[in-house]
Amino acid sequence: MEAAVGVCIIAVGDELLEGRTVDTNSRRIQRALGGHAVRTRLVQSVPDQPDAIAAALDQTRAGELVFLCGGLGSTPDDLTREAVATWAGVAVCPDDQALEYVCERFRLRGRPLPSTAALQGRVPAGLKALPNPVGSAPGLVGRLRERWLAMLPGFPLEVDGLLPVVLAELDAKGVLPTARDILVRRCAQVTEMEVVRLCGPLRDAQPDLHWSWWVTDWGVDVRVAATDKAGGLGDLGEALDVALGPLVFNRGTQDLPLVVQERMLQAGHTCGVAESCTAGLIGGALTSHGGSSGFFRGGFLVYADEVKTGLLGVSPATLAVDGAVSEPVVRAMADGCRERLGCTHAIAVSGISGPGGGSPANPVGTTWMAVSSQDAGGPTTWAHAYRFPADRERNRLLTVAAALDTLRRVQEFGADRDPWLLPLAWPAGP
Amino acid sequence: MEAAVGVCIIAVGDELLEGRTVDTNSRRIQRALGGHAVRTRLVQSVPDQPDAIAAALDQTRAGELVFLCGGLGSTPDDLTREAVATWAGVAVCPDDQALEYVCERFRLRGRPLPSTAALQGRVPAGLKALPNPVGSAPGLVGRLRERWLAMLPGFPLEVDGLLPVVLAELDAKGVLPTARDILVRRCAQVTEMEVVRLCGPLRDAQPDLHWSWWVTDWGVDVRVAATDKAGGLGDLGEALDVALGPLVFNRGTQDLPLVVQERMLQAGHTCGVAESCTAGLIGGALTSHGGSSGFFRGGFLVYADEVKTGLLGVSPATLAVDGAVSEPVVRAMADGCRERLGCTHAIAVSGISGPGGGSPANPVGTTWMAVSSQDAGGPTTWAHAYRFPADRERNRLLTVAAALDTLRRVQEFGADRDPWLLPLAWPAGP
Repeated sequence: MEAAVGVCIIAVGDELLEGRTVDTNSRRIQRALGGHAVRTRLVQSVPDQPDAIAAALDQTRAGELVFLCGGLGSTPDDLTREAVATWAGVAVCPDDQALEYVCERFRLRGRPLPSTAALQGRVPAGLKALPNPVGSAPGLVGRLRERWLAMLPGFPLEVDGLLPVVLAELDAKGVLPTARDILVRRCAQVTEMEVVRLCGPLRDAQPDLHWSWWVTDWGVDVRVAATDKAGGLGDLGEALDVALGPLVFNRGTQDLPLVVQERMLQAGHTCGVAESCTAGLIGGALTSHGGSSGFFRGGFLVYADEVKTGLLGVSPATLAVDGAVSEPVVRAMADGCRERLGCTHAIAVSGISGPGGGSPANPVGTTWMAVSSQDAGGPTTWAHAYRFPADRERNRLLTVAAALDTLRRVQEFGADRDPWLLPLAWPAGP
Repeated sequence: MEAAVGVCIIAVGDELLEGRTVDTNSRRIQRALGGHAVRTRLVQSVPDQPDAIAAALDQTRAGELVFLCGGLGSTPDDLTREAVATWAGVAVCPDDQALEYVCERFRLRGRPLPSTAALQGRVPAGLKALPNPVGSAPGLVGRLRERWLAMLPGFPLEVDGLLPVVLAELDAKGVLPTARDILVRRCAQVTEMEVVRLCGPLRDAQPDLHWSWWVTDWGVDVRVAATDKAGGLGDLGEALDVALGPLVFNRGTQDLPLVVQERMLQAGHTCGVAESCTAGLIGGALTSHGGSSGFFRGGFLVYADEVKTGLLGVSPATLAVDGAVSEPVVRAMADGCRERLGCTHAIAVSGISGPGGGSPANPVGTTWMAVSSQDAGGPTTWAHAYRFPADRERNRLLTVAAALDTLRRVQEFGADRDPWLLPLAWPAGP
């Protein structure tokens, strides 16, 4: 078994030290490397100062793979090339290949080459320029002082664009250890603690595997990696699917809006929303991806009670007797929405996000949800009450994720099954 | 003039090195310190390993103020207390005050004290425990090895809660340099580059001031700090207001949804939305804060063309002739929304977020917006086309910020003025 390669990430930029920007590039790099047997040892943010960059490089060790992000632009405070060259004792030289990549980018954008472009065509001797598919600064990769260095710009979109190019180069040079055998299960409507509990027996049975959990906007991702080349994951995938059951919405990289979209498009279904407490966030999430107009029709934001009545026909008597956050109201909202938009599915929510509005019977976090469906078997409507445990912002985001996952469950298991009879980690409401 | 105090921030946690979590605590600390004459020299993420924590502490210098976040919990991988004590050559001892704070939290939550609570009541000798208003781990502050150390938990909500307590203690000990005189101007619908350009002459006139710019969800914040105790900011605030004009939506800490909400509530106005490309994100943003039901009535998500006609009365002929992304359509959407909801103001958007749907005449990013108002002077409707320069996700967020700022401008300058005749940094559309 080969040892994990040590990785160091150095984020360069005054903005990181002034609190203007959060370094998200480290996570991008770590995730991109996630399939390989590497171990990140150090993540550091340093200002645009040659001394600070050199001091950070001094902390890296021979044999490690060192990523530097930022400071590859063409303004006077972009000093990373020079700092690396000085630290390594090499010169920064004009590089025909690098300059060609820079010129190509300006050609593609139809813009004249600025006088500063030549700066981005300069490369520390020993490094190789790689084409940047998003911006003008080429990536730089090579071996200096017994480390492999990979230099990228600081702008996250450029990091995302360049990372596959950089990793392919490192792979070609034999720097990256063999990609690990990996399993991913993306789960929704569940807490990290519950996923860990459900996976417990499988972990205990194969203690040599590397398990990790990531909280996402939609729930919790489980990732299991084989830790050596000899042992694979065997039939762990099937065992995980049994353990996690309907909590799993994807086994790859798709997010929940895309999963819902693809299922709706495949089935020829259409969808509408009727939102009170989320006031549009569910519709916003359902349309995150291009192509959503193929299934998403529209919806109703019914924040005020009169608007629930006026737009969706919720009876004033029901509102008065049961209250706006109640089963009859969300059922009427979902049915009214589906009928008015002529879509096959509608989801409705009404809840108390907080901080005000709670009562002993309906505390902050109480959220009623209903899904109304029309298929060959006729119309069906299911409803459920959640009690989300957080503050206003997070309760609303939890509601959005639950609404999308409910639509996913209805697509996956059929409209004739109560999507909330399947296991859920959130405590039920009244 | 006193020299700026050097600050080092060490974020502790395996999750930061595995890419599971982005370190946002560093920014929280930097922002909280923003009023003081400090200079962040180092930000580093290290795993939950005593050696790595010690190596990071070795990089700090005598006289500096060192923040450590994370690893103060009560599980076996929470090692920061022990690592700091070992590094400083002191013992970790049970501390009555710390234990009292831990017990108090469990009492307040009505939960029994777990057996692990005593771990959180242990403190490296020489540090003082401070009450954590959010979680159970007390903050720890004190002087060890000629540094001032401030130890906080890693959970961001607890960092936010503890920071004022920690800074008050540091201030009482005379560690924090005098708070600077500070000006803040929060701007919307403008780029960082344009704000920097507008401030240029003022910067040149007073080169000793410390200027910074922060890109936010709503636009760009400008912050100017006096760099010594002698010179203040004088009448710079008025000069900044002249330079930035209607771009400024707040001079303190309020975000754009709260500014719109407070202006609407003060004026007794009510609001609705009619959204196509944003599909609810504007309604979601307008209801970010508790109390939004006092002005927000509801809205229409009209993604499909038939829904624009069916719900808002947009004429099919207009849709056919002018297209869904056009001035007549957003005007009809805004007016139809305001009339149907009976509110004083309505905002409508229809745009091409991307990646598909663009054409030479209406490229991706083209977004029509209209605002319809009803006040004493009768109804007025203004419309404007934006060309946002980004990808789908960012174009939609720019649309949300522009919509909220348009409502702010109408509140601030009156419905009888075209809110888009005031300067805007985004290029206009067709």
